[in-house]
Amino acid sequence: MKTMSRKLNLVELRSLIRRNQFTQSTSGFAPGHTQVNLVILPKAYAYDFLLFCQRNPKSCPLIEVTDIGSPVPKLTTPHADLRFDLPKYRIYKKGILAEEVHDIEAYWQEDLVSFLIGCSFTFEQALIDNGLSIRHIEEDRNVPMYITNIPCEPAGAFQGNLVVSMRPFLAADAIRAVEVTSRFPSVHGSPVHIGNPEQIGIHNLSQPDFGDTVTLKDGEIPVFWACGVTPQSVAMSSKPDLMITHAPGHMLITDVKDSHYSIL
Amino acid sequence: MKTMSRKLNLVELRSLIRRNQFTQSTSGFAPGHTQVNLVILPKAYAYDFLLFCQRNPKSCPLIEVTDIGSPVPKLTTPHADLRFDLPKYRIYKKGILAEEVHDIEAYWQEDLVSFLIGCSFTFEQALIDNGLSIRHIEEDRNVPMYITNIPCEPAGAFQGNLVVSMRPFLAADAIRAVEVTSRFPSVHGSPVHIGNPEQIGIHNLSQPDFGDTVTLKDGEIPVFWACGVTPQSVAMSSKPDLMITHAPGHMLITDVKDSHYSIL
Repeated sequence: MKTMSRKLNLVELRSLIRRNQFTQSTSGFAPGHTQVNLVILPKAYAYDFLLFCQRNPKSCPLIEVTDIGSPVPKLTTPHADLRFDLPKYRIYKKGILAEEVHDIEAYWQEDLVSFLIGCSFTFEQALIDNGLSIRHIEEDRNVPMYITNIPCEPAGAFQGNLVVSMRPFLAADAIRAVEVTSRFPSVHGSPVHIGNPEQIGIHNLSQPDFGDTVTLKDGEIPVFWACGVTPQSVAMSSKPDLMITHAPGHMLITDVKDSHYSIL
Repeated sequence: MKTMSRKLNLVELRSLIRRNQFTQSTSGFAPGHTQVNLVILPKAYAYDFLLFCQRNPKSCPLIEVTDIGSPVPKLTTPHADLRFDLPKYRIYKKGILAEEVHDIEAYWQEDLVSFLIGCSFTFEQALIDNGLSIRHIEEDRNVPMYITNIPCEPAGAFQGNLVVSMRPFLAADAIRAVEVTSRFPSVHGSPVHIGNPEQIGIHNLSQPDFGDTVTLKDGEIPVFWACGVTPQSVAMSSKPDLMITHAPGHMLITDVKDSHYSIL
């Protein structure tokens, strides 16, 4: 459940996050500003992961990759410090979730490379602008995310299954949602699946692997988008020595406007 | 000037290219099939170049990156062999164009990584389908390409200026060309410039840096798109020990259909 008002202004929000005083999901906050997923890896893994992203652009659309050792995403958010500016992080050691923390100062190393990956929160504003209601925002929850049975295209040390986010819609709205999100290829784009969750290996919609469960109303169809939490499923399968990520739903808020990523 | 008929079927065309019997520009051949630019680098440069492509998606939209040492683009054209299947290659040694060759068997090394980069030939078919005429195809020439004064976003060892391809259109057609090519973000997408060439550092349209000159008729506006020959300008500036590329206009013909890369 949210404890902060979504009306917080951006400066205030960022200041609270940096001071570990805002530690919840950023969904619905700072509307219009692009939020991104985070993956941090030692340089030894960076080439394989960069290639993994190139081969899996629907789940891992790269917004920016930092220079080695720099915690500053200089191209999209030059004042940010990736060690502090997300509300919550996850530390994966050899594929095991070891810890959740509110900053990663203690984990920082000079050989780390940070990957900023597009997030579906970007197209949620476009969906709302088109009159569609986003259930998890309505219900003040984090978006539900599921590990599917769809294998990603492997690259070097990295392999694993696709993670999807789910939003329920009536049929006509689901169709409109396909149209609207197709215009945002660099933030996951169009859905990867629509309808029967079993077909992609999801057996129980009320038990998401990440995030919260939301209500599926009578007549609604679940619509599934590739999700930037996929690298966390990949970490579990591929077991790199260290992978630091955002906690699902707890994103970096960049300086770039969502509309920047829209085609047409 | 073309010497082969554009009506050659794909099997025949590929067979001729593999046997070094087709050595001209592939522009206008195999309509509907995606053609790609090629960059081959030793593994030591691969991370920096992959990052360069990520930071410069308009000029270097990656279609595929091969596994280290493999000349086979297994995801898009699994029967192809990148050592033989382009009509002409360029060998850059420390930034100097050392040689043009029709196959690169003699240059192959076990540590080479190949980058397939989207090509504007893909959207040319869409332009033609929209009733626009492509001057360099009309005039049976290679597309004119120019090195601009626009710096690319650097990455590690790689920096240099953007290369653009140019097509002249009347104003109404230029507007339509922007609309049509916007739908193809993964093959350079919308133009980077329209009108006055001087504004992007091009002083003489009749002297392209790559390809052929084409006629600019009264009332026509030159329209400029980011070009996959940019890595060759980058090679000249960055001077890697070895970079093998396609010769401008002499592309790999993949199995993927152009329409695959269209948004909406």
